[in-house]
Amino acid sequence: MTHEIAVIPGDGIGQEVTPAAVEVLEALDVDFEFVEAEAGDAVKEETGEALPQETYDLAASADATLFGAAGETAADVILPLRDAVDSFVNIRPAKAYPGVDAVRPETDLVFLRENTEGVYSGIEDRLTQDVSTLTRVVTESASEDLGEFACEYVEDNSYDGFTIAHKANVMRETDGLFRDTIKRVADENGVETDEVLMDAFATHVCLNPEQFDVIVCPNLAGDVLSDLAAGLVGGLGLLPSANVGPERALFEPVHGTAPDIAGEGVANPAATIISAAMLLEYLGYDEEGQAVHEAVEATLEDGPRTPDLGGDASTEDVTNAIIGRL
Amino acid sequence: MTHEIAVIPGDGIGQEVTPAAVEVLEALDVDFEFVEAEAGDAVKEETGEALPQETYDLAASADATLFGAAGETAADVILPLRDAVDSFVNIRPAKAYPGVDAVRPETDLVFLRENTEGVYSGIEDRLTQDVSTLTRVVTESASEDLGEFACEYVEDNSYDGFTIAHKANVMRETDGLFRDTIKRVADENGVETDEVLMDAFATHVCLNPEQFDVIVCPNLAGDVLSDLAAGLVGGLGLLPSANVGPERALFEPVHGTAPDIAGEGVANPAATIISAAMLLEYLGYDEEGQAVHEAVEATLEDGPRTPDLGGDASTEDVTNAIIGRL
Ligand SMILES: CC(C)[C@H](C(=O)O)[C@@H](O)C(=O)O
Ligand SMILES: CC(C)[C@H](C(=O)O)[C@@H](O)C(=O)O
Repeated sequence: MTHEIAVIPGDGIGQEVTPAAVEVLEALDVDFEFVEAEAGDAVKEETGEALPQETYDLAASADATLFGAAGETAADVILPLRDAVDSFVNIRPAKAYPGVDAVRPETDLVFLRENTEGVYSGIEDRLTQDVSTLTRVVTESASEDLGEFACEYVEDNSYDGFTIAHKANVMRETDGLFRDTIKRVADENGVETDEVLMDAFATHVCLNPEQFDVIVCPNLAGDVLSDLAAGLVGGLGLLPSANVGPERALFEPVHGTAPDIAGEGVANPAATIISAAMLLEYLGYDEEGQAVHEAVEATLEDGPRTPDLGGDASTEDVTNAIIGRL
Repeated sequence: MTHEIAVIPGDGIGQEVTPAAVEVLEALDVDFEFVEAEAGDAVKEETGEALPQETYDLAASADATLFGAAGETAADVILPLRDAVDSFVNIRPAKAYPGVDAVRPETDLVFLRENTEGVYSGIEDRLTQDVSTLTRVVTESASEDLGEFACEYVEDNSYDGFTIAHKANVMRETDGLFRDTIKRVADENGVETDEVLMDAFATHVCLNPEQFDVIVCPNLAGDVLSDLAAGLVGGLGLLPSANVGPERALFEPVHGTAPDIAGEGVANPAATIISAAMLLEYLGYDEEGQAVHEAVEATLEDGPRTPDLGGDASTEDVTNAIIGRL
């Protein structure tokens, strides 16, 4: 069966790393049809719209989407795209690789971030000159979906259980509902859980990252804590992510457009290529996905390396090396 | 003039480190009258109330309060106590000390955390079986107060300016108001600012803590990001904090009750004693405050050290060493 893959390079180094990941996918024996579309600052400049309707529609109908990065318009692009694929969970692995300088080389975490609500509800008001409000929404149904997914995830990937990170000592009703619902779903599925306050997690993950594996958390907590983990493994250059919905999914590196190096052909394609590996696994190409993971890891360890990792190789050199190792 | 100092040891190691800090204050030539009061799990057990009215009233009338820690009831104690002193800013220095193992020894930061609103508004509802909400409140007036304070703070402490950390790309109205108001106040006062998204801050502070000095942020951002910084300097054992209001203030270590070592007499009193140094400075005893800071730093560097820092000294040994160095 042919899978339709939407490819949205976006801005800056998105234009370099996304084609690199497509090249890797094309080197495999998989039946993909790639359809490219625009989003981001550049298309907004031209058309007034950061996310043209046809790009949204493409992501909403393709089997999977590979997205690069967007600049100033990032929130206007990525939040609707997550919605286009109906994504209820953002999977963010944060793993330190041998051969790459890391603040905490023991880090090997996976964040399962709620991807639809919390402070991302978009419900804000300026009530008076003085007072503005945002309605943070937490639903039992979204928490259940995330909990079910987390249970499957830890089973499929042979983890012992997961940790729920929250701030229910302050957000008693909303994060209380989040925590209690996920805990209940885990109990029903016979999956072990523990819990940690998100502030305490921030301290402890710096001191002892090896004490955590899979962390399930609300939307903003997932945003901040996974970026923290990115710092521990040595920057955003290596972090992939998957926005998974019930019928389709969108894959993107966690990094941005890196305007300082955009256009120079030296961007590190690793995060996008690992995101492509997650895309392969999502579509059932487990062996191919595994092969890409291994080829990236071997390349991170033995080179060639782009300048962000202390080397002087180009995006193309690294991509070719990865393809050579498949 | 005699200053009335409320002393609220609370639970766990609060009972050990708070008296240690009082001993240090008593060793100085200052005119303090200490009044002790109860709060926390133990008094809740006895009386049903984690924060008895007389404790609240004492904090609301004393010139300054020194608080230790509370256990399960932490939120029920510390949030009302912050309110009792009308605290609009929580000052959280996070500094790595020579002689103390740190993940990032270059870390030397001060967080100025908004201390009254954001997701700490307490306005939550269960609208339906499925839907719960929390109203996140950001006001221009609270942002102005924090901005004014931040300007004075960077001037008094000879910083070049401050960084505003926020999530205004998603929380456009609320964090937009926060950022714009603080930026306007800084501009009016001729203070330089820059800004960073709170998630990007989490990455960058791990990679290059030396690029930041003073960080001004909303309530929950300050909670999480300062705890992250605590991880970078080697744990919560060393972090002091000040909850400052227009007429009084409350000082507390950032750490908790440490039930695993409570009662053994080996808790590290450093964070509480540094909090006491901030109390001295707050009440105008600048020289005495400075002397306490220096005595703590010398003791962290040359010992004796409590077990959390790899030593085998007791709380009393460390306290005596600090007093000996005054
Ligand atoms: C660009 C922004 C809206 C986005 C988010 O907050 O989710 C980004 O930080 C991310 O983590 O993908
Ligand atoms: C105990 C809790 C309510 C508190 C907070 O969230 O402010 C604590 O984490 C802190 O940072 O002092």
